[in-house]
Amino acid sequence: MKFIKNRITQLFKIQYPIIQGGMIWCSGWELASAVSNAGGLGLIGGGSMKADIFREQIRKCKNATTKPFGVNIPLLYPYAEEQIKIVIEENVPVVFTSAGNPNKFTSFLKENGIIVAHVIANMKFAKKSEEAGVDAIVAEGFEAGGHNGREETTSLVLIPSIANSISVPLIAAGGIASGAAMLAAMALGADGVQMGSRFVASEESSAHKAFKDKILEAKEGDTQLHLKKIVTVRLLANDFANKVAQMEQNGSSAEELSRVLGKGRAKRGMFEGDLVEGELEIGQVASMIDSIKPVKLIIDEIIEEFQIKLNSLSERYREGI
Amino acid sequence: MKFIKNRITQLFKIQYPIIQGGMIWCSGWELASAVSNAGGLGLIGGGSMKADIFREQIRKCKNATTKPFGVNIPLLYPYAEEQIKIVIEENVPVVFTSAGNPNKFTSFLKENGIIVAHVIANMKFAKKSEEAGVDAIVAEGFEAGGHNGREETTSLVLIPSIANSISVPLIAAGGIASGAAMLAAMALGADGVQMGSRFVASEESSAHKAFKDKILEAKEGDTQLHLKKIVTVRLLANDFANKVAQMEQNGSSAEELSRVLGKGRAKRGMFEGDLVEGELEIGQVASMIDSIKPVKLIIDEIIEEFQIKLNSLSERYREGI
Repeated sequence: MKFIKNRITQLFKIQYPIIQGGMIWCSGWELASAVSNAGGLGLIGGGSMKADIFREQIRKCKNATTKPFGVNIPLLYPYAEEQIKIVIEENVPVVFTSAGNPNKFTSFLKENGIIVAHVIANMKFAKKSEEAGVDAIVAEGFEAGGHNGREETTSLVLIPSIANSISVPLIAAGGIASGAAMLAAMALGADGVQMGSRFVASEESSAHKAFKDKILEAKEGDTQLHLKKIVTVRLLANDFANKVAQMEQNGSSAEELSRVLGKGRAKRGMFEGDLVEGELEIGQVASMIDSIKPVKLIIDEIIEEFQIKLNSLSERYREGI
Repeated sequence: MKFIKNRITQLFKIQYPIIQGGMIWCSGWELASAVSNAGGLGLIGGGSMKADIFREQIRKCKNATTKPFGVNIPLLYPYAEEQIKIVIEENVPVVFTSAGNPNKFTSFLKENGIIVAHVIANMKFAKKSEEAGVDAIVAEGFEAGGHNGREETTSLVLIPSIANSISVPLIAAGGIASGAAMLAAMALGADGVQMGSRFVASEESSAHKAFKDKILEAKEGDTQLHLKKIVTVRLLANDFANKVAQMEQNGSSAEELSRVLGKGRAKRGMFEGDLVEGELEIGQVASMIDSIKPVKLIIDEIIEEFQIKLNSLSERYREGI
């Protein structure tokens, strides 16, 4: 298969409608360029990067691929404004913003010729994003790793709700790590998919090896939403997550939870490989990931499975009816 | 379209692979027979019924349809054993068991010529059900209404996990109320779907009119899992659910929660229409349900949408590749 032609591949000028989520501590230039080189859209995860590192990552990515790539900028992080300036100076073609108000930078980015997508988890922010003029929306379901919506709406419910209510292209995220799940997302009205967890467990991701190996062991029920009183986040079970869960069951306050959380736990877990006391952000679909693979193989297998499953559905249910 | 031929329709001898969830207080003989007459498989929800009422419901259902129908028996309820005897005496062709150990009655039911399906929310019970000899498995995701699994695995992750691990036919439940969602479930490896919420809001369901109307108003985030310290259940927000949520945030114990729950709240909410103090069990997909319709129309529309979406996917993505 050479390409899939739809609104998402045309918008980003890519081969397959597969976006790699721009995750903190896991998605540097090596992952982003590998995804773009393999026909998807790679995103540098800006959330964990100070200005000089962010610029360096962008430059390395440009050297590693001639294909379009982008960055993810979580608007709640302190470096967001500086990063917006850098993407313009460095001519980054695509910016995904998340965790904040899409009105803040969308017009400014678009005036500078940048394609903008915004990540949402509910209808209110989908509408707000469209009004702000974004080129695409990422709808992220409850099963996604990392920061997550309060409504807890799963992808199966969120994707068609949003698809029926917006006119810009829709990218589905949360629970997707296979061609079958990609096909399901398209059946629900998505034009493309964003995958995080599957790419964390790739050879090219900057996640610590110990964290990658831990993902392979994850079973159903091993990730849960925590810290709902501060900022909701889906974490893989470990001593830290279990402690927080216990505190939450006992009714601990936001202040108490913040004190225990402290600073730098995401880096400690995902980048430095502290599997005991670090935050390990990963999606529910970790339970289905059982090998660390090179990005190109991941994408090729997903596209192949997408095709096989679609052929099989078509043959079984378009005939015999 | 006349029929869909696959393992589920062949097993149950039905036209379409659509099962109506056997929900307490909402699914009596009128709903079950309407679903069976419309080409799906209707289930009488035994959970709320004492022996004499249960037998009467079965007899009325037999009078109302010549098509196969079944009953759902939640094994944790006190009437389960008596109900098992009644289904055999009354020659009910299909039994769905839930909320308990599939080893308990599967062999006995099958020795009596009854087709048995068991409802699960995780891999452990899927395996256990298959070992017990069930004819089909219902995998119910986090987004489903009513009682729910501890793992919180969503349908998008649960369906392919289970489909890849069992050999008996798989019915997907949770988050499905449209032809698009049915197609997504089939793409993920299901052979059929079980729908609850959509049928609660049907003309034929025995839910109180006030509850049905309340479902139409539901928005995203309006249902949440509660009572995790007792038996996890997804409820629509109202004074009772909000009170429980507050207690849970403050760390209330199982005993305190049980005291507040008391007895009979499900009947009070869903059957008697107390929207303030009753338990209103409904799935996340309530946010997408905006009209009360007759069962036949619901099923016809779902099958039509399934077909349209499949044609559209096939045309868009099997060409151009």
